Amino acid sequence: MRHVRIYDTTLRDGAQAEGISFTVADKIHIARKLDDLGVEAIEGGWPGSNPKDVDFFREAANLRLKHAKLTAFGSTRRAFSRPQEDAILKGLVDSDTPILCIFGKSWDLHVEQVLRTTLEENVRMIRDSVAYLKSTGREVIYDAEHFFNGYQANPAYALECIQAAAAGGADLICLCDTNGGMLPWDVEAAVKLVSERLDVPLGIHTHDDSNLGTACAIAAVRAGAVQVQGTMNGWGERVGNANLCSIIPVLQLKMGCRCLTDEQLATLTEVAHYIGEIANTLPNERQAFIGRSAFAHKAGTHVDAVMKVTQSCEHISPEAVGNQRRFLISELSGGSSIISKAREAGFDLTKNSQETREILSQLVHLENDGYVFEGAEASFELLMRKATGSYEKLFDLLRYAVEVEKQGPGSETITRAVIKVNVHGEEHLTVAEGNGPVNALDGALRKALREFYPELDGIRLTDFKVRVVDAKVGTAAKVRVLVESQMGEESWSTIGVSPNVVEASWDALVDAIEYGISVKVRGAARPAAEVSE
Amino acid sequence: MRHVRIYDTTLRDGAQAEGISFTVADKIHIARKLDDLGVEAIEGGWPGSNPKDVDFFREAANLRLKHAKLTAFGSTRRAFSRPQEDAILKGLVDSDTPILCIFGKSWDLHVEQVLRTTLEENVRMIRDSVAYLKSTGREVIYDAEHFFNGYQANPAYALECIQAAAAGGADLICLCDTNGGMLPWDVEAAVKLVSERLDVPLGIHTHDDSNLGTACAIAAVRAGAVQVQGTMNGWGERVGNANLCSIIPVLQLKMGCRCLTDEQLATLTEVAHYIGEIANTLPNERQAFIGRSAFAHKAGTHVDAVMKVTQSCEHISPEAVGNQRRFLISELSGGSSIISKAREAGFDLTKNSQETREILSQLVHLENDGYVFEGAEASFELLMRKATGSYEKLFDLLRYAVEVEKQGPGSETITRAVIKVNVHGEEHLTVAEGNGPVNALDGALRKALREFYPELDGIRLTDFKVRVVDAKVGTAAKVRVLVESQMGEESWSTIGVSPNVVEASWDALVDAIEYGISVKVRGAARPAAEVSE
Repeated sequence: MRHVRIYDTTLRDGAQAEGISFTVADKIHIARKLDDLGVEAIEGGWPGSNPKDVDFFREAANLRLKHAKLTAFGSTRRAFSRPQEDAILKGLVDSDTPILCIFGKSWDLHVEQVLRTTLEENVRMIRDSVAYLKSTGREVIYDAEHFFNGYQANPAYALECIQAAAAGGADLICLCDTNGGMLPWDVEAAVKLVSERLDVPLGIHTHDDSNLGTACAIAAVRAGAVQVQGTMNGWGERVGNANLCSIIPVLQLKMGCRCLTDEQLATLTEVAHYIGEIANTLPNERQAFIGRSAFAHKAGTHVDAVMKVTQSCEHISPEAVGNQRRFLISELSGGSSIISKAREAGFDLTKNSQETREILSQLVHLENDGYVFEGAEASFELLMRKATGSYEKLFDLLRYAVEVEKQGPGSETITRAVIKVNVHGEEHLTVAEGNGPVNALDGALRKALREFYPELDGIRLTDFKVRVVDAKVGTAAKVRVLVESQMGEESWSTIGVSPNVVEASWDALVDAIEYGISVKVRGAARPAAEVSE
Repeated sequence: MRHVRIYDTTLRDGAQAEGISFTVADKIHIARKLDDLGVEAIEGGWPGSNPKDVDFFREAANLRLKHAKLTAFGSTRRAFSRPQEDAILKGLVDSDTPILCIFGKSWDLHVEQVLRTTLEENVRMIRDSVAYLKSTGREVIYDAEHFFNGYQANPAYALECIQAAAAGGADLICLCDTNGGMLPWDVEAAVKLVSERLDVPLGIHTHDDSNLGTACAIAAVRAGAVQVQGTMNGWGERVGNANLCSIIPVLQLKMGCRCLTDEQLATLTEVAHYIGEIANTLPNERQAFIGRSAFAHKAGTHVDAVMKVTQSCEHISPEAVGNQRRFLISELSGGSSIISKAREAGFDLTKNSQETREILSQLVHLENDGYVFEGAEASFELLMRKATGSYEKLFDLLRYAVEVEKQGPGSETITRAVIKVNVHGEEHLTVAEGNGPVNALDGALRKALREFYPELDGIRLTDFKVRVVDAKVGTAAKVRVLVESQMGEESWSTIGVSPNVVEASWDALVDAIEYGISVKVRGAARPAAEVSE
C-alpha cells in the first residue's frame, strides 16, 4: 500500500484565514491533537516574522509528540547577502525543530516585480539558503511558491529554481499552487514532468480558490507526489488551503493510499471539530466527510433507499471518518429519526406511540423556533422525559432579574442577578454578582439550590456558546445559547433560544442543572412504561 | 468558443439541503434572478411529489423569462404499469414546462434492492417513460441517477439503461454521480466512453461529498459533456450539489468555454448572495470566487505582493465575477496593510511614522484581548482617528444600566435600559425597553442623542453577532460582539469585546453610532496632517 505523508500547516498557513487568530496556548492544544490524529509533520509557525511563533516553538519543545515532527517555516535569504547573517534563517535554526521549511520564488514575475531582484540572484538565494540550513543537520523542505504559475509562464526558469533547491540538498521539494488557480490535469502533468527530471521526493501544496484544491492535491499524488500539505477544515489565505479533512479520506478510502491508521482516520471528525472550537469558528456544516450534514438524508427517496441499503446513497461509511448518518426531521423521516435518537438516550419508543408523536410534534415546533438538539442532547432528553412523564422538577422559578450597570467609561461594570425560587415548598431569594449575566445567574441559582442539592458543587459549567439564529433582523434577532457542563469525566450540553440573550442563557442554564442533578447525580431511571415490544 | 449549457437545479435539488426551505414566492424570485444571470434551464420542482411545486409551475407560467427554459422534474413510471396512467408522469406533463426531466436507475443494486424490480423491467420503464414524454412534443432530459456507480458495478447494464433512454428519444442524457463519491479521472473516462457509444448529447450532474464536485463536472466537460447541472452556492442533499458559482467561472475563465456573457458573469457574486438572502442562509464567506474572503489578503507578504502586481497573488480578477479585493488587518499584516487600510479610509500614512507604529501597537494589544478588526472596519477607522487626533467625541457616557426581569415561567421577560449621557454640556437621562439588552440599549441611546443628532433616524442596526472568544473558561469566557449598521446603501461593522455580553454590545453599539454620525452623515474630514511624502 502506497504511503502518503501528511504535512499539516493549520498553525501557519491556516492562521492566515480571515477570522482565525491563535494564541500560543491554542497552538499547543492543536499541535497535540494533530499528533494524536497521526499527521507526519506539523508546521508550527514562522519564527522570523512573528514573536508569538518564537514563544510557540519554545513551549512546543516540551510537547513530547508521539508521531509528528515539528516544522518551522521561513523564506530564503535576502538578495545579495550571506545566509549565515540572515535574520529569518537564524530564526529558523534557533527554533530547534527537526524539520525546517523555506519558501522561495519560481515565477519570474514574482522575482522581478515583487522581490525585485535578478533571476540569477534568486536562483542563488534558493541554493545557498537550502544548503545553509542543511549544514545544520536538519531535514529541509523547500516550498516552491507559485511553482505552477511559474512553470506556465517560463518553464525553463521554474525548473532551474527547483533544481537549485535540489542542488542545495533539499530533502523534499513541495510544488505550490499558491494562488489556487490551477486545473487538476495541469497540476498532474507538471508534477509528472518534474518527477522525471528531479531525483528528489515531491510534495504538493494547493489552495482552494477555484474549488479544486482537493482535486489538484490528489492529482499530484497520482502523478507521484509523496507528501500533501494542507490545513484542517481547509483554513487559509483567501478561500483557504487544500483541506486535509477531504484529502486524507479521499487518498485513503478511494485511492488505496495510506496516510493514517484506520483508527486515526475514525477520529477525523472529532479532531476537526475540536480544532474548530479552539479557533472559535462556526463549523461549516456542509463540509465534505466531517460536516454535520455530510451524511444527513432529507429527500424521502434517499431516506428510504438508505434504510434499505446504506451504500445506495452513501459514498463511504460515515463511521470510517468518525461521522454519523442523520435522518432529517420531515414528514417522511421523522418517526424513524426520533426513535433512533430516543434509543441513543436509552428510551425505547415505538414508532406510532402517543409519546413518539408528541415528541415529534414538539421537536418540529421547537426547531422552527431555532432550537437545534443535535448539539444539546441533554435538553433533548429532558424534552423526552417531559413528554413521557418521567421528568422530575427540582424547583419552581418565581422570578429572576439581572442588572448590568456601568458608571462611566473606565469604571467597573457591575453585574448582579437576583433569583427567587420555590424548592420543596420553601421560597428562596438569592443574589450573586458575576462578570456577565450568565455567570451571575449561575451563581445565584447555585446559592438558592445548594442547600437542597449539595451535589451541585460537583457540576461545573465548562463552555458557553452564543449564536444569532436568524441574522438580518437587527438586534431583534433570536439568539441560541449552548451551555456545556461537566461532572467528573462526564459532560453534557443544553440549549436555550430567545430574542433575549439573558433569557436564552437562563433556559440553557436551568436545563444544565436539572439534567446534571436528576440524571447524572441521581441516575433517574428511564421510564419502564416506554419499553417497547 | 465552445458553448456549455448551464442547468440550474437550486429550486429542486438545492431545496434538499439541510436548512433550506423555499416558499412559492421565494422560488419565483429566485427563478427571475437565475434568468437574469443567463442560465439555460431552471429546474423548478417535482410536481408529482410536492403540491407546493404544482403551485410554483402554475405561477411560473406568468414569468416571461428572457433566456431560461423552465424544467419540471420527476421519475420514470412505476414498475409494470402504463406511462399514460402514471401519476408522476401526468404531473410532469401537466406542469406545462418546455423541458421535462426524469430520472431512472442505472445501478443494478438500486434496481434490485431499492426499487425492487427486475433489471429488464427497469430498462423498459426508462424507454417507455422517455418515449411517452417525447410524444407530448416537449424537450426531454433523462437523468441517469447513480450512473457512475452503476458503471463501476456492472458496466454493460449501466450502458443498456442509458441506451434505452436514447431509444426512447431523449434529447439529452445527463450522467449523475448522485452519491458524490467519484474521482475526476474516473468520471472523465466514463463520459468519454459513453460519448463514443451514444449519439445523444451528454450532461453531467455531480455532488460534492468528496469535495470533488467541481472537479468531476469540469472533467466531464473536458470529456465532451455539453451541459452542467448544479446549484447556486452548491446547496443540495448532504454536502451539496456541484456548485455553479465555481463551475461557471472555471469553465469560462480557465477552460475557454462560454456559459454566460461577460456582463452576466460579472453579476455572479450579487446573484449568489441575493439567492442566499432569499433562502435565509448565512453566507459561506470562504466560498470560492464569490465569498467575502475569496480575494481577502491577510499575510503581510501577500498584501505587499498584490499592492505591487495584483495577479501575483490573485488567480483571476475579482471584478470578473463581481467580487472585490480586500486587505485584512491583523498582527500578521504589518505596516503595508495598515497603510493600505488607512488609504481606503482616506488617511495617507507613511510606513514608519509615529502614527503607524501607534496604530500597529494598539492593534496587537487589542487582538490579544480578542478583538478582530477584519470584520469591523468602522471600529478600526475610529481607532485610527483616535491615534491620529482626528476623532470627534459625540457624547460622554455618565452611566448605563440594563435590567432583565422575569416573573416566572411563561411570563413575559422585561428588558429595560437606562442611560445617562452628557451631550454638549447637557445631561440626558433616558430609558427604553427592548426585546434584549442590545435592543434596549440601542433604544435608550437613540432617545438620548436624537435631539442633537437627528440624522440617527436614518441609521439602522441590521445584524448582530455574538461569539465566545476563549471557550473552555466557562461562563467567565470573553464575548465578542459584532454589530452591522446601515444608512441608505452604505453599511459598516463595529466590534466590542468583554467578559460581559452587555458591555461588549454597548461598546460595539457606541462605535456604530459614532461612526455613522461622524463619518457617514457628516463626512468627517481626514486629518490633513497625515498626508505623507
